[in-house]
Amino acid sequence: MPDRSVRHAPTAPTRILRVGPDGAGHQDDVLAVEEPLAIRVAAGGEHRHLSVTMRTPGHDAELAVGWLYAEGVIGGRGDVVDVSWCARDLGRQDHNAVTVTLRGDCLPDLSALDRTGAMTSACGICGKASIDRAISSVPSVPEPSSPVPATVLWDLPDQLRAAQEAFGRTGGLHAAGIAATDGTLLGAREDVGRHNALDKLVGAAVFDGDLPWTDRILVLSGRASFELVQKAAMAGVGVVCAIGAPSSLAVEMAERSGIALIGFLRSTGANVYSQADRLDVVDGVTVAS
Amino acid sequence: MPDRSVRHAPTAPTRILRVGPDGAGHQDDVLAVEEPLAIRVAAGGEHRHLSVTMRTPGHDAELAVGWLYAEGVIGGRGDVVDVSWCARDLGRQDHNAVTVTLRGDCLPDLSALDRTGAMTSACGICGKASIDRAISSVPSVPEPSSPVPATVLWDLPDQLRAAQEAFGRTGGLHAAGIAATDGTLLGAREDVGRHNALDKLVGAAVFDGDLPWTDRILVLSGRASFELVQKAAMAGVGVVCAIGAPSSLAVEMAERSGIALIGFLRSTGANVYSQADRLDVVDGVTVAS
Repeated sequence: MPDRSVRHAPTAPTRILRVGPDGAGHQDDVLAVEEPLAIRVAAGGEHRHLSVTMRTPGHDAELAVGWLYAEGVIGGRGDVVDVSWCARDLGRQDHNAVTVTLRGDCLPDLSALDRTGAMTSACGICGKASIDRAISSVPSVPEPSSPVPATVLWDLPDQLRAAQEAFGRTGGLHAAGIAATDGTLLGAREDVGRHNALDKLVGAAVFDGDLPWTDRILVLSGRASFELVQKAAMAGVGVVCAIGAPSSLAVEMAERSGIALIGFLRSTGANVYSQADRLDVVDGVTVAS
Repeated sequence: MPDRSVRHAPTAPTRILRVGPDGAGHQDDVLAVEEPLAIRVAAGGEHRHLSVTMRTPGHDAELAVGWLYAEGVIGGRGDVVDVSWCARDLGRQDHNAVTVTLRGDCLPDLSALDRTGAMTSACGICGKASIDRAISSVPSVPEPSSPVPATVLWDLPDQLRAAQEAFGRTGGLHAAGIAATDGTLLGAREDVGRHNALDKLVGAAVFDGDLPWTDRILVLSGRASFELVQKAAMAGVGVVCAIGAPSSLAVEMAERSGIALIGFLRSTGANVYSQADRLDVVDGVTVAS
């Protein structure tokens, strides 16, 4: 297993012209780095290119493994033999391609990964029925031990922001964080792509054996899309909080998967879009919906 | 050509539980709709499925045509014979698949669309050289008639926000707007996906014959990624303003394509990351970089 702490430059210095109504001047600034990462799998001598994602370098092994977990290709750390970076000519290590070697004598069935292609090959995705099918193909999350007190939510945006401090100066990175049900943030990951940030967080949990996230709260720095709720459902987390708005399909997906989906989370309140009974909203008393 | 004004439900009503430190109560709310759109092309009896994007319904023909323009498949309205929605069993129209019929007796070469696949098939994208190649394969934008006065920028965020008024209540939609060099906003499109909002705007310009956007300013409601700057370069616009941060690769792409990339645009100022000489920054005097 490669050193998971290896990270090559998630931010890059730059020089800008700061312009305002009163004039202009040159300044130093910092950018969030965006670079392609190719994800491959290998097993028993076979290998297959699966995906390219535009991501912020750092935690690449977690990103690849978390993505494979969310896609259902692996079920846990035991399915992963090794994660390696592509070594190119003259032995120079190249950090923009990762190969995940899987347990077994041959590659698993990867046809489900071509979901959009498969679903659309016969006009299959364009109807309401097939969207329902796509939603229902994702498992329901496990029942939590007890409802989560809403009072633990108000501090989560500040905790996530504090965890982003190192990269916050770019203003260009999304974050995903995982918290205990007492509201303590346990970990966070960042990326220019919000889906990558969540994949990195899931990948870290795969390595740590911390899945499913049964008694956990997932916090997302941006909006909640269908894709993010799908990944959350695969990780088994019953409470998902977004600082931004959810989409219609994200709410449908959350309702079907048993996830309490919370949007516009602030220290002053939040909107609950689905499965509100997963929360204790007032002094431990659950409000009936 | 179908009615381009057809739009089926970009927003959807919902019922939420509003929760705050002082209690909770049910309220009506509005969601941004997210649904898959399949994009196909047809010519001379052949047809091909190209892509599925998660988008907000509305302006689907513009989205498909704008995406094809940004991908280099079409060069203008003259290349498009017809845009139609997939008609399914019993003649019921289905709005989640669009077929663009192209001029000609057969489909054009579409191999470039599989860029990520092609670039990675031999570990091709993982090196710096191939990222450079990807960037340099996008054309330079045409020279504008004259530098754009920075003073016209300050009002653009408010104008874009005003154009979003109809859907602004969801809080969940990105927007892309196009403005004249005197700072007048000429048009805007919205979507849950920022790349879709830009594709819709480009598609509208294809239909209106308004490309390349030589003397125009593009305004983006969110951050500026590699992909968005790539689309802007294909549309030939020399000044791109984002309300959010640009990524490192977005700045590289802008520099190489001759685009002035502006980030963190506010009424009180902005950061210029590339090609600052495309702007007149102080009373019409260009500051040398």
